[in-house]
Amino acid sequence: MRSIHSGQTAGQAAEAEEWRSAITTTDEERIYVRGLALDAAIGHESYPAMVLRLWTGRQPSAQDTALFDACLVAAIDHGPLAPSALVARTVTSTGAPPMTGLAAGITAFGPLHGAAVTSAMRVLADLGDVADPATWARLVFERERAAGRRIPGIGHRWHSFDRRAERLLDLVTEQGRDRRAVDRVRALAGVVGEHAGHAVAVNIDGALAAVLTALAVDPIYGDFAFALARVAGLSAHIIEESVRQRPMRLIDPTLVVYDGPPVEPPDTR
Amino acid sequence: MRSIHSGQTAGQAAEAEEWRSAITTTDEERIYVRGLALDAAIGHESYPAMVLRLWTGRQPSAQDTALFDACLVAAIDHGPLAPSALVARTVTSTGAPPMTGLAAGITAFGPLHGAAVTSAMRVLADLGDVADPATWARLVFERERAAGRRIPGIGHRWHSFDRRAERLLDLVTEQGRDRRAVDRVRALAGVVGEHAGHAVAVNIDGALAAVLTALAVDPIYGDFAFALARVAGLSAHIIEESVRQRPMRLIDPTLVVYDGPPVEPPDTR
Amino acid sequence: MRSIHSGQTAGQAAEAEEWRSAITTTDEERIYVRGLALDAAIGHESYPAMVLRLWTGRQPSAQDTALFDACLVAAIDHGPLAPSALVARTVTSTGAPPMTGLAAGITAFGPLHGAAVTSAMRVLADLGDVADPATWARLVFERERAAGRRIPGIGHRWHSFDRRAERLLDLVTEQGRDRRAVDRVRALAGVVGEHAGHAVAVNIDGALAAVLTALAVDPIYGDFAFALARVAGLSAHIIEESVRQRPMRLIDPTLVVYDGPPVEPPDTR
Amino acid sequence: MRSIHSGQTAGQAAEAEEWRSAITTTDEERIYVRGLALDAAIGHESYPAMVLRLWTGRQPSAQDTALFDACLVAAIDHGPLAPSALVARTVTSTGAPPMTGLAAGITAFGPLHGAAVTSAMRVLADLGDVADPATWARLVFERERAAGRRIPGIGHRWHSFDRRAERLLDLVTEQGRDRRAVDRVRALAGVVGEHAGHAVAVNIDGALAAVLTALAVDPIYGDFAFALARVAGLSAHIIEESVRQRPMRLIDPTLVVYDGPPVEPPDTR
Repeated sequence: MRSIHSGQTAGQAAEAEEWRSAITTTDEERIYVRGLALDAAIGHESYPAMVLRLWTGRQPSAQDTALFDACLVAAIDHGPLAPSALVARTVTSTGAPPMTGLAAGITAFGPLHGAAVTSAMRVLADLGDVADPATWARLVFERERAAGRRIPGIGHRWHSFDRRAERLLDLVTEQGRDRRAVDRVRALAGVVGEHAGHAVAVNIDGALAAVLTALAVDPIYGDFAFALARVAGLSAHIIEESVRQRPMRLIDPTLVVYDGPPVEPPDTR
Repeated sequence: MRSIHSGQTAGQAAEAEEWRSAITTTDEERIYVRGLALDAAIGHESYPAMVLRLWTGRQPSAQDTALFDACLVAAIDHGPLAPSALVARTVTSTGAPPMTGLAAGITAFGPLHGAAVTSAMRVLADLGDVADPATWARLVFERERAAGRRIPGIGHRWHSFDRRAERLLDLVTEQGRDRRAVDRVRALAGVVGEHAGHAVAVNIDGALAAVLTALAVDPIYGDFAFALARVAGLSAHIIEESVRQRPMRLIDPTLVVYDGPPVEPPDTR
Repeated sequence: MRSIHSGQTAGQAAEAEEWRSAITTTDEERIYVRGLALDAAIGHESYPAMVLRLWTGRQPSAQDTALFDACLVAAIDHGPLAPSALVARTVTSTGAPPMTGLAAGITAFGPLHGAAVTSAMRVLADLGDVADPATWARLVFERERAAGRRIPGIGHRWHSFDRRAERLLDLVTEQGRDRRAVDRVRALAGVVGEHAGHAVAVNIDGALAAVLTALAVDPIYGDFAFALARVAGLSAHIIEESVRQRPMRLIDPTLVVYDGPPVEPPDTR
Repeated sequence: MRSIHSGQTAGQAAEAEEWRSAITTTDEERIYVRGLALDAAIGHESYPAMVLRLWTGRQPSAQDTALFDACLVAAIDHGPLAPSALVARTVTSTGAPPMTGLAAGITAFGPLHGAAVTSAMRVLADLGDVADPATWARLVFERERAAGRRIPGIGHRWHSFDRRAERLLDLVTEQGRDRRAVDRVRALAGVVGEHAGHAVAVNIDGALAAVLTALAVDPIYGDFAFALARVAGLSAHIIEESVRQRPMRLIDPTLVVYDGPPVEPPDTR
C-alpha cells in the first residue's frame, strides 16, 4: 500500500475487483429479473411467483406458487405482542420515521423469533438415509439434546397447537407432494412433547421449514420467507401505533385489548 | 414520581395504560387477522389479498388484489446498484447475519429511494378541485418549485422512460378504474420534463403512488408497499453476496457484470 | 444509458465521480484523524478531546474538552425504561447478536427521545437579536405554539426537575462562558411551565443543546452527542438482558425492580 | 391460554414477570448509574471512567481509565472505506435521517469488521495454563486452523503493520500491568505471519482484546468498546456526506480523495 497524504487518492490503496451478479439487469427502459422483463411480468405473474423465480432462478409451476403463497399468508402477522411488533411500535413511538420502525422490527427476527426457519430446514435435511420419521425424530432429538442445542421449529410461548402451522403442512399432502419433511417435523414435535410431558406445537418456523423443503427452496432462503411475510404485519403495527397511540407512551404488552372486527369462525367458510 | 432506591420497583413510576389494537388477535389454537382465521385463509386467499385486508381492514375484490399484486411485482428488485442493495451487501460482507443485512437494507429506503410513495400520494391528492391534469400539474410544479421542495415520484438517476412504471399505470386504465391519479402523475412528469428540457420518467414511486391512490389505500401505506416488495430483492442480494463473494471485499458499484439468464425480449410473450 | 445484457457491465451505466473527504486518511502503517496520527494521540489525547477534534476539525482547549466530556457523562444512561433500552433488550431477547441489538436501540433515537438536541440547538439560535432571555422565550413559545410544533428540549415524561440537566447548565457558568443559550433554555422552560401550570424541566436534550451551543459545535452534531453517550448505556442493557434474563420473555416495563448498588447521596461527595 | 375475542384483553394470555436490573435507577430529580448520581458525576468523572463504571460495576482507578480512554481513541475512525462508514454514507445519501444512518453503520459491525474483539478476548483467555506465549500461539493456531476457523484480531486488508494497535499494546507495558495477553496476541500474529510468508499485523480488534483483557473487562463488552469508539467516526462521515455530497450519488470507494488538514508527522509531537 502506498503512502497517502493530503490531496492524494485514498481509494487507490484499495484493490477493487470486477464482480458478478446473476439477479437483475437493466437497459435504458427496462428492468429484467432473472431474465424476465418486469413490464412483461406485471399483470401476468403474481408476486409470490416472482419471488420464487427471484430466489430459485426458475419459473415456478402453479402448484409451487400456490404453496409458497400459502407460506406467506401463514406468517403475515401474529399480533402486537411478537417482539418484532413491540420493537417496531416502540421505535415509532419516539417519532422515528416509518421505514426506520420497519428496519428496527426486522432486527428482532432473531433465532428465537422468525429466524429459525433456515436452521429448521437444515435439521430436517439431516440424516437423509433414515426413512422412518419416528426413528429419525428420536435420533435428532437425542443428538441435539446431548449437544445442548435448542431444536428449531418446535414449541411456542403461548400455543400448544397451532392450526395455522398444521393447515400449512396439510397443503403439502393435499398437493400430493413428497411429505417426508412434513412427517419429520410432526414426529419431532411428538418426541419433544413426550419428553416435556405435554403437547408441543410445530410452530410457524417448523411448518415453513417443512413446506419450503417440499418446495426445494434453498434452506438459506427460509428465514427470508418469514421476514418477507411479516413485513406486512409490522407495517400495520407501525401505522396503528402512529395513528392511534400517544407518542412516547410506555408500552405495557399485558394491557393490550383487541378491538378489531369480530373473529370469523373458520367452520363457516 | 416517588423516590426509588435499591430493591424498589422502578417501573411503578411509569403509568402504563390499557391500549387497543384492531389488527390481530389469537386464541389457544388460532390467529385471526382482521377477524379472519389464518388457517381458514391458507389455501384460499393469496398473500397480496391478505396484505390488502391487513392494511385496509376490508376484504379486497379480485380486481383490487390483481392491481396490488402488480404493484408488488413492479418493485420487486432494481439490481445491485440500488442503495438498499449495496448497503445490504456491504453489511453481509462483514459477516453480519442475514436478518441484520436485511434490516440494514431497509434503513436505506430514504425519501430519495423508495420512501417517496407516501409523499407522492399526498401530492397527487392535493388541489382536489382542479379537474384538468395539465393545469393541476403546472400548479403543483410551480408551488413545489417556489417552496424549494423536490417533487416526489418523478425522475430517475438512470432511466428517462420506465416501462415498468408505465405498464403499471396502464393497468389502471385497463381495469376501467378512475384514472385521475394516473393522468396527474403523467402530466406532472411532462411538466418536469418541459422544464428540464428532456424527457423525465414517472418513476416507480410515482407509479405506485398513482395506482395505490386508484386502489384507495391510505397514503400512509404507500412507502410500505415499496418496502414489502423490495424485501424479496434485498434477500436475493444478501444471499448472492454471502454465497458468491469474498468476505470484506471493497464493493465497487461500477465493476459489476451481469451473468444471469439471458434477457427475454418482452415482445415474444 | 446503454443497453446491458448478459455478460456486459451493468455498472458502466452509472457515472461514478471522484469525491472528497476531509476526515481521515491512512498510509501503510498509520491512520490520521483530522491530520493527527492516532498512534501519536493514544496516551496523550482523551477520547472526548478526539471526538471534538473529529467533529469540529480543531484541537479543543482543555476547558472545551471538560465541558464536552460532561455532556457525555450526563447522557450515558437513563435506565431500562427508555425506549432505546427497551428496544435493545427486546431484540436481544430473540437471540439476535449484540451489535444488532445496539443498532436497534439507536433506531429508537427519534425526535421525542434523544434526537431533539439538534432541533433544540436551532431553536436556541433563532431570533439572535433578541437580547432578553424572557422576551426571547415568550416570542419563541408563541411562534412554535401557533405553528403547532412541539418545543424541543423542554419537559420529561417522569421528571419535573432534572438535576443532571441543571448541573450541566451550571458548568457553563462556572467556566465563565457566554451563558446566553443557558439563560434562553431556562427561560423557555419557565414559559412552558407557566403555560402548563406546573414546573417543567429543561430535559437532557435541552441541556445538551445549550452546552453544545456554548461550545460552538455545529448544531448538526447535537443528536450525535446524545447517541454517542448513550451507546454506553445501551451496551449495558444488552449485556444484562442476555446474561440475566430468560430468552423470549415478554418484557413488562412496569415490573422492573432495581437491585444494583445502593444509591450514593450526592451531598456526601 | 384462554380464548381471546373482540373486546377481551389479548395481553392477559402473556405471563409477564417481575424482572431485575442493576444498572440505573431514578428518583424524582436524579438518575443514579451503578449507584452514582449523574449530577454528582458531572464535572468530576470523565466519560471513559463512567463507561468503565457502567460496564464493570466498579469505580475504576485513574490508570484503568487512562488505558480504556486510549482504547476509545485508537478505534475512533478508520476513514471512509470502512464498511460501516460506506453503509452510513449510502443510507444518508437516500435522505434518511442521521440517526437511521448511524444505526445502519452499526449493523456493519460484523465479525470481520469490529465485532471480533469479544471473540479475540475469548481466544486470548484459552489454554490458561500454557505460560510461554510462542508455545501458546502455535497451539491455538494449529487448533483453529484444524477447525477451519478464522483467527480473530490478526491481519488487515490494507495494513501489514498497524502503529495504532502497537502503541495501544505498548501502553499496557508502560503501565507495568500483566502483559500476558499482549505477548500472546503478538505471538499469534507472528505465527500467522510465518504461515502466510509475510508480516501480518495485530489489528485493532486484537489490540483492543489484549488491552481489555489486561483491564479485566468482561469479554462480552469487547465488541461494544469498538462500537462506542467508532460511533464518533460514523457521525463525522454521516455529516460530511449530507453536507458535502450530492444526494443519491453512486459511491465508488476507489475514487475518494483526502482533502483534510495536512498530516502531522508523529515524531514532531
